[in-house]
Amino acid sequence: MKTARLITLTTDFGIRDSYISCMIGQIRQINPSAEIIHTSNLVGRQNILEGAFTLRNTLPFYPPATIHLVVVDPDVGGDRDAIAVFHHGQFFVAPDNGILTLALDTTEPEQMVSIQNPAYLSREISPVFHGRDVFSPAAAWLSAGVPMNLLGPGRTTMTDLRWSLPVYDKNRIIGQIIHIDHFGNAISNISRSFLENWAAGQPVQVSLSGWDPLPVSRTYSDVEPGDAVALIGSGGYLEVAVFHANAAGLFDIRPGSQIVVEKVQE
Amino acid sequence: MKTARLITLTTDFGIRDSYISCMIGQIRQINPSAEIIHTSNLVGRQNILEGAFTLRNTLPFYPPATIHLVVVDPDVGGDRDAIAVFHHGQFFVAPDNGILTLALDTTEPEQMVSIQNPAYLSREISPVFHGRDVFSPAAAWLSAGVPMNLLGPGRTTMTDLRWSLPVYDKNRIIGQIIHIDHFGNAISNISRSFLENWAAGQPVQVSLSGWDPLPVSRTYSDVEPGDAVALIGSGGYLEVAVFHANAAGLFDIRPGSQIVVEKVQE
Amino acid sequence: MKTARLITLTTDFGIRDSYISCMIGQIRQINPSAEIIHTSNLVGRQNILEGAFTLRNTLPFYPPATIHLVVVDPDVGGDRDAIAVFHHGQFFVAPDNGILTLALDTTEPEQMVSIQNPAYLSREISPVFHGRDVFSPAAAWLSAGVPMNLLGPGRTTMTDLRWSLPVYDKNRIIGQIIHIDHFGNAISNISRSFLENWAAGQPVQVSLSGWDPLPVSRTYSDVEPGDAVALIGSGGYLEVAVFHANAAGLFDIRPGSQIVVEKVQE
Repeated sequence: MKTARLITLTTDFGIRDSYISCMIGQIRQINPSAEIIHTSNLVGRQNILEGAFTLRNTLPFYPPATIHLVVVDPDVGGDRDAIAVFHHGQFFVAPDNGILTLALDTTEPEQMVSIQNPAYLSREISPVFHGRDVFSPAAAWLSAGVPMNLLGPGRTTMTDLRWSLPVYDKNRIIGQIIHIDHFGNAISNISRSFLENWAAGQPVQVSLSGWDPLPVSRTYSDVEPGDAVALIGSGGYLEVAVFHANAAGLFDIRPGSQIVVEKVQE
Repeated sequence: MKTARLITLTTDFGIRDSYISCMIGQIRQINPSAEIIHTSNLVGRQNILEGAFTLRNTLPFYPPATIHLVVVDPDVGGDRDAIAVFHHGQFFVAPDNGILTLALDTTEPEQMVSIQNPAYLSREISPVFHGRDVFSPAAAWLSAGVPMNLLGPGRTTMTDLRWSLPVYDKNRIIGQIIHIDHFGNAISNISRSFLENWAAGQPVQVSLSGWDPLPVSRTYSDVEPGDAVALIGSGGYLEVAVFHANAAGLFDIRPGSQIVVEKVQE
Repeated sequence: MKTARLITLTTDFGIRDSYISCMIGQIRQINPSAEIIHTSNLVGRQNILEGAFTLRNTLPFYPPATIHLVVVDPDVGGDRDAIAVFHHGQFFVAPDNGILTLALDTTEPEQMVSIQNPAYLSREISPVFHGRDVFSPAAAWLSAGVPMNLLGPGRTTMTDLRWSLPVYDKNRIIGQIIHIDHFGNAISNISRSFLENWAAGQPVQVSLSGWDPLPVSRTYSDVEPGDAVALIGSGGYLEVAVFHANAAGLFDIRPGSQIVVEKVQE
């Protein structure tokens, strides 16, 4: 192949130790022209769902045939499987713990194998660091053009893991906060399309515990600095922020906090 | 073009979420050979002046035709303009909020356009993430060789933002701390050239509130571990440090703290 | 040369300021095809031994002729030497403060020079940032194929710095914790090979102050979430962890804490 495929990296390994550098070294020894892009190595420790959310937000912006190496792997060395997946033009290499379902929106991808062929793994495999000794080599060989089916036997269904969907009736939606970002903005599990279908053009207001109800604004600066604002975030979900400040810190919002949308009585 | 231009990235988007990865993906979809260097994605949130300072310190070390993508953008989606700039052989893509003036040392760069041509932006533009949907595509197209004037109509003057200059008379300079670095070193707004012109060869001493006056030393290890030292930092500004320790933490120095230079009476 | 050599970067400069970006810019101005991999720029400030440990863990995973640029340099601008080293097929550029001995396991590498030739340094050298003005240019020129002996005169012995070895008799080993990683796992100075030679097949148990003795397990998930576990970490040293939690935080373990291994009386 002419152009080496990109490899994106989403992990909870942190950026202080040598873990990520070991993974990159492994990859580069196998494929010297592989190019690695760090999606995030600061996914919350052992937080599979946060890794899944990070991957999901990144996916739409990558070119076809990108390889997404996704390792949040609390059960490393146990009996969870290691999988390589091809779906909608992209490759994924990950533990089979549900970290891919949110991004792929299915548990039955177009093609999937169990990574088992020792020819494509490290000669010595640490039972506590498959990120380095199993997943990195597998991703590197894929990036070098090795067909996925050489990595191991085929599989059909992978582990499912998703956040709970919002509950709703005709008057209100009860959702929850799923992620607090770097700015302290609180992102919910209520997607724009779900919200728009439900509201059917009627104006709505958004409440978190202890906040005055807010209209859905267009951007942060629609309100004054220090004021709260609800809007559709860049990932397509309803989020709540405070302009020029940290909403989650100010109002003690956490993943799991309840968020309510109601139709405004006109 | 043969060699893709480098793109440096200076933002306050943090490194925990997928924001930076989305920007890189956007860039790489447009120009697969673009190479991105992270200057800092940990500029203080909404801190335009800190972003400007980071850019200014980086600029002298980059080759001609580098593209500097600089996004600290609290008013995203509001009415501030998006600009692309060419000045002294380098390109800049940024919100027009003053983040470039410190680095360029002018508000009237050699060439400037307002980024408006939808052909060079994302098809769908989130009003809360122009970093991904406006600035990244514009930088990517520039790196692919698109002439700047295709991005939008020309402009002449950009927003000005600088820190206050030191005040002085013939006996002393009163400056202020503008940045605390990773080591806790406190960097002032008093430049080496300003200081040397003012002192005209006479010895000087440096004081912060609550410190004994210090001579200007050459390097940290000119004093004993645990002792305070004043010197010209690597960015060319007078700074105060504690050898082997964190000066800002120990002495509660912050951006805005006063620093005084006096001529020593001989 | 056809393929530019990789340059890995291990420093305590942090990732918030422009320091690392200045180093990369310097390198790229000298060798536009140099490729930089960040091992860690978050080595503890002035912590030479932690930098050495990070480098040591990374080394086995890099291809021959990689250049390791290692700058934890509290005495910058003082009289410590700057060295370039070739050993076991890899290059190293670092201050001569002992940061290389742990990785090279010798103080007399195959080839070493004192970096002094001004032709391969910055024209202007800040006495407080040799990382940018001395070490980066030297590494860049090496990556561009400049023979090491052009950088300066040869040397034979470099500064030694290692952690204390464990003490032991036939009943027990007393070691110490040398590193707390991103997960809060506590890594000791007791290597797998040392432990296995000493135990000679007999079962052992591991104790930290205030813990019940633990067997040596294979991986984290050999115990229940919340339980402590001792195992051989991915770098080849005995480590103690808590499954799904932060061992160092929970039990106040720090670098220097004592760890004891005893033979189990059967």
